[in-house]
Order: sequence, then structure tokens, then C-alpha cells
Amino acid sequence: MKHESLGIIEPQRACCEHPLALESGGTLERYDLVYETYGNLNDDKSNAILICHALSSDHHAAGYRDESEKSVGWWDSLIGPGKPIDTNRFFVVCNNNLGGCGGSTGPSSTNPETDKPFGPDFPMVTVKDWVKSQVFLSDLLGIECWAAIVGGSLGGMQVLEWSTHFPGRLQHAVVIASAAKLTAQNIGFNDVARQAIRTDPDFHEGNYYQHGVTPERGLRIARMLGHITYLSDNAMAQRFGRNLRQKEQLDYQYNPEFEVESYLRYQGEQFVNRFDANTYLLMTKALDYFNPARNFNDDLAAALSTATADFMIVSFSSDWRFAPERSHEIVRALHTNDLNTSYAEIESDHGHDSFLLEIPDYFKIMHSYMNRIYDQLSNTPKGYVDKDVGKDDGK
Amino acid sequence: MKHESLGIIEPQRACCEHPLALESGGTLERYDLVYETYGNLNDDKSNAILICHALSSDHHAAGYRDESEKSVGWWDSLIGPGKPIDTNRFFVVCNNNLGGCGGSTGPSSTNPETDKPFGPDFPMVTVKDWVKSQVFLSDLLGIECWAAIVGGSLGGMQVLEWSTHFPGRLQHAVVIASAAKLTAQNIGFNDVARQAIRTDPDFHEGNYYQHGVTPERGLRIARMLGHITYLSDNAMAQRFGRNLRQKEQLDYQYNPEFEVESYLRYQGEQFVNRFDANTYLLMTKALDYFNPARNFNDDLAAALSTATADFMIVSFSSDWRFAPERSHEIVRALHTNDLNTSYAEIESDHGHDSFLLEIPDYFKIMHSYMNRIYDQLSNTPKGYVDKDVGKDDGK
Repeated sequence: MKHESLGIIEPQRACCEHPLALESGGTLERYDLVYETYGNLNDDKSNAILICHALSSDHHAAGYRDESEKSVGWWDSLIGPGKPIDTNRFFVVCNNNLGGCGGSTGPSSTNPETDKPFGPDFPMVTVKDWVKSQVFLSDLLGIECWAAIVGGSLGGMQVLEWSTHFPGRLQHAVVIASAAKLTAQNIGFNDVARQAIRTDPDFHEGNYYQHGVTPERGLRIARMLGHITYLSDNAMAQRFGRNLRQKEQLDYQYNPEFEVESYLRYQGEQFVNRFDANTYLLMTKALDYFNPARNFNDDLAAALSTATADFMIVSFSSDWRFAPERSHEIVRALHTNDLNTSYAEIESDHGHDSFLLEIPDYFKIMHSYMNRIYDQLSNTPKGYVDKDVGKDDGK
Repeated sequence: MKHESLGIIEPQRACCEHPLALESGGTLERYDLVYETYGNLNDDKSNAILICHALSSDHHAAGYRDESEKSVGWWDSLIGPGKPIDTNRFFVVCNNNLGGCGGSTGPSSTNPETDKPFGPDFPMVTVKDWVKSQVFLSDLLGIECWAAIVGGSLGGMQVLEWSTHFPGRLQHAVVIASAAKLTAQNIGFNDVARQAIRTDPDFHEGNYYQHGVTPERGLRIARMLGHITYLSDNAMAQRFGRNLRQKEQLDYQYNPEFEVESYLRYQGEQFVNRFDANTYLLMTKALDYFNPARNFNDDLAAALSTATADFMIVSFSSDWRFAPERSHEIVRALHTNDLNTSYAEIESDHGHDSFLLEIPDYFKIMHSYMNRIYDQLSNTPKGYVDKDVGKDDGK
């Protein structure tokens, strides 16, 4: 556990006993959201930042789960004391999304109607549903307006949804390595991953919990495939090239010959130990479905016309899963709506994964944007009072 | 069956009773190669063109297997009377590679030692082994020197191997949408495909023939994944976009919502009906292993220094599986060796699949290059005799 970190974080649980009407048509009668918070909420509750997680992560964004190094949060390099999202200044919240497998109500939770895990009976959830559940969490925490909502990839889609459907409840929208909709290629990759899981004989139509198995084979394949698409061709070339795995000569066998095979299989293996296959299915579907322009004749500017927040959009040069062009589309639509929009395209060889990495230019920009947000906080009425108190002009 | 085609083609079989020493260390005591020929071999056997097939194709490059439209050869648009590879001028040969499932000796053939299918006992075969078996076929057909050897993708690798190991046996090397070695990303995709097949419970360690099953699930996933990588992002956007499949509204189900899902699943389904999983494994491994520079300190120019043929290298702008940069590497190495080298980078939105498509610029270039080859044939001694006979100058 590193010194400059938040230390061990205890997750919390919010229980919502009000039914949630879902975009897919169903209703979730009640649900729990597991979340973590870092830093302190100020008196006027104006310094709160919501972090939205992506496909395969959860509420554990920063700090450690326990004493071990590997229990570190997925965005710990970005969030913490003195870090770009500075927990000495901000109160940071991150929740595990509905349908997740980090403790929030999801397919592996007990269905109160059957006393068995939901499995395939867990309804399809969308970005819109997640945002509605995050609104519940905001109310519970007494946060009327987030200083910023920040998310990468699928997380960025949640930020876009917040900004258009609850424009009064956030000041800044920070959308990193994201897109206003998936391309056909992206949907294709997601469907290959889903088919790998759903055709695994251990999937049992999603009821694998009762069979004491998990569709490990399919989930492993899904993760291996995902990993390739999160990295850039160049990043893989630099990191692995055609290096052989711990040997000098080819074996002409199906065991890993090349480092890259060994790496991908290891990533697949690790993933099946920590992630639920039904959740993976739900998260990829939420990605596919997201498309705010759908009801606006494919006009993204029209879809974003209700937004009022200031926007910070970030993309990475080598990200081919959520390419810079996808961010340009968002930026154009925001400009059409005369919204304050900053855009940064970061040079990086690390592909889509870049948004999770400590890349100096990226972190510098995040730091300075978060400073700007903090400076605005200090200029709120309460800030002025403090300043006036500090003035020594005798009035 | 189209009129301008070669009509129905009867495949032929060449039986090699000499042992083949394989690059992987083993020996194949005997083997059959199934092949097709189109056009007529001229008297001095100088007009022969060898076609090398890629990952998932076979000897049936042109013409029809039967009366049905869909029995057309995989390169029928390129090969035939009056087509770029003109069968009125050239004698064209294409064989199914060793390890294939089109009739040549492969994993589904009977192992004479056990009287059962080879299955996993079929040895690993490489591009070098294929070329050695093609040399046998050349000898059998009495072709000492091919006018050209032509191949796309994995086929192009065979052309490179011919040009360096049997330089005296070809005049022209035509290498299309290929590479001198796979990148880490490519190996990664191949390994995902292989793991999908090998972890399918119906794979039975490759002995599925005896169990009356095939690892359909895995092969389907492998093909779906392959298909995405053969197309470009743009091609998929133009062809499918986010179009829904035969409906107006989302269903929020796992059945295909989008056209692209439906297309990929269909492609996967078709493939399992025509291709053998063990062959798919072998072909992807042959792709991974190919790397002529391996024994030359990664110096491709040194690896190609034995070549004497004239080269035509073709790449496609949107091909990200075998990107133009991979062709540039080959072209640079050929220039270093002062070899006659033509290079064309064709603008195309169709990704790697472009090499199989009738793209006007591509076909025009192929036509003119093949014309050049034909003109050279006519200038051989025998050509002069014919011309002299034709001359009506009374001498």
C-alpha cells in the first residue's frame, strides 16, 4: 500500500426501496448500490465529484481494499490526496452500477421473488437506468449538484446521460475516451464476446449459479478479445513484439509460443476469478444500446441541447475502440449548442487503456481542469464570505 | 453459373509417396494434394501460374464446383477467360494446402498408422512445408519455372517463401495484402480464435471426429472474430451502421438487435458447415510462425537476398490486419536487394477482405501486371518462332 494513497477504503451500501422503472420496460422493485467515498463533503455540499465506472470495473476506484498492493483501486493514480482529482479538496463518490458484480444488485444477487440468484431474470439495464440510480444515491448523500461527473469509456456515456437528463445537477462533465454511440465494429466485438459466454455449456442459460459452475471458457475468451481491443497495435508491438515466451526456440505446439499469447491467457484467467459472466453480458449490452441521438433523428447536437454543464472531452491518439473521431463528434455537437467545451487529444501509444494510465500530458490536463473547478467552488457565495472575512480593510 | 466463367471444374489429386521432412521436426511419410487447373499449359510450359490460398480457402479458386451460384471459386473474379489472370493465356494451378480440409492430407484424413483420422496427431505444418509440397506438385506437372506465383494474405507469405528458397523456379512474385510476419496484435487475435476452439468441450483434444461432434461453438466464435478483423471499421459502418435487424424498436434481448450481430452470427454458422476446426488451428499457427527474417537477426532484406524474381506488392489502404506498412517493409527489403519491384497501395474501404473483391483500381493493376508477364512470355525463344511463322515477309 503506497503512502500517498487514501489507505484502506470501506465500501458503503445504499438501499433504495422505491421501484425503478427501467428503459427496457421492466421494473426493479428495490435495489442496493455499493459505493465508496474519498475526501470530505464541504458544508454547502458543493465539492462533490461523481466517478462513473466502465465495463469491467466497479465502485473501488481509489485507495485499497486491504493491505495488499493489488487491491488498489482502478483509478487510484488519478484520485487521492494531491492527485488530479484531489481528495484534499473534493468529496469523491463512486458506485458499482446496477447489474454489476461488485455488491450492487445484479444477476448474482438473490431475487426476493424466488430466493435464488436472479441470473437471466435480472432485467436489461441501460446507461439511463444507471444514471437514475445514481440520482437516488445523490439524493441520499444530499448532493443537489455535483461539481463534476467524470467517466471514461462506458463511464463517459453516463456523464453524457447526466448532462442531458439532469442538467441542473452537475456543473462540469468530464468525458474521457468515450463515444456518443458504438460503431458497428464495436457492437460486433461485443457480440463475439457475448456469444462466447452464452454458448459455453456451463452458461446454462444464465442459471450457472445453481449448477455450481461458471462459464469460464467463454468469459476468458471475451476478456482476451477485449484486451486486444483496449491496446493499440503499436503498444502490443512494443510490449510483446514477436518475443518468445521463456524460450529460445519455437516448440511448434499449442502452448503459448509468444509472450503475447501468454499475457492474454493470463488476463483471461485473472478475469474469470473476479467477474461475473451475466454482468459482463449486461454491461456490453448497455454499451451497445447507448445512443442519445436515437430519438433525435441521429442528430447528436439536438440530443445534447438540454445540457448546460461545462464540458471537458479527452481522447487518445491510438485508441481505436473509442477513436478520437468519436470524441470530435461530441465536441462538434457541444459547440453547436454553444456550451463551454474543452477538448484534449492526448498523444499516447496505449490505445483505449490510456484512460486508466498515468500519462503525463493527460494527468496535467486533468489536474488543471480540476483546479479550475476548485477555483470556481471558492468563488461561490460561501467562498466570497470567506474572502471578505479575510479582508483587512476595516469596513 | 455465369457465362464468362470457366464452368464446372473437376479437382485433381496428386499423390506424393516420398516422405516430407517438416519444419516442426516431424515427417509426413506420404501425402495427397488436391488441386485444380484452369487454362492450358503451353508447349514449353512457360505460361504456368501458381495461386496460393489463404487461411480459410482451398484449391477451388475459380470456376464452379457444380451448377449452383454459390459453388463459385474464391478468386473467380480474378481468374478466368479475359480476366486479370487470363486463362486464355495462362495455365493456372491452385492446390489445397497440406493440413487443409479441402481434400489434401490433413487432420481429418485417415492416419495409415491407426486407421483413424489424424486429429491432433497431424503434425504442425508451416509455410515452408507448403512450399516444399508445391515444389513436388510443380515437378509432377513438369513445370520447371512458374511465370508467376500469386497469393493474398497467408498466400502472399507462400509467395515470399518460394521467392527466397526456390528463386530459380519463378519469374514473378505477386504478394497481395500480406506481411513478412504477423504483429503481436495479429498473433493475439489468432490465439483468441484458437482458444475458443480448443476450450470448446466438443473439441476433445482434437479427436472430435471419433466422438461424432465438432467444436462448432469455438469455430463459430473464431470465424465471427476473424470477420470483424477482415473488414474495416468504415466498411462495417457503411454496411451495417447501427441498423436494427428487421425491426423498428429495440427488444432489449440477447437475440440479434443489430444487423451486424445477425451478419456475424450467420457468417459463423456458415463456416462451421464447411471448415474443419483442426485445420483452422493449423492455418493460424502457420501464420504466426512465418517470419523469414527470424534466422537473419530480424533483417528482412538479408532474408530476401536470395530472391531473383520480379515483385509486385499490393496493399489496401483500410486493411488493418495486414496494413500497408507491412507491405512497405517488404518493398524496402526488396529495394535493398535491387530487385525489380512494383508496389501499389489501393484505396479501398473494405479492409483485408479487399484482396478478394473486384475493386476496379486493383483489378486494373493486376490486369496490366499480368499483361506484362504475358508479353515477356511471348519474347521467349519459342515466342519468337511463333512470331516468325506469322510474319509474311517472304524470307
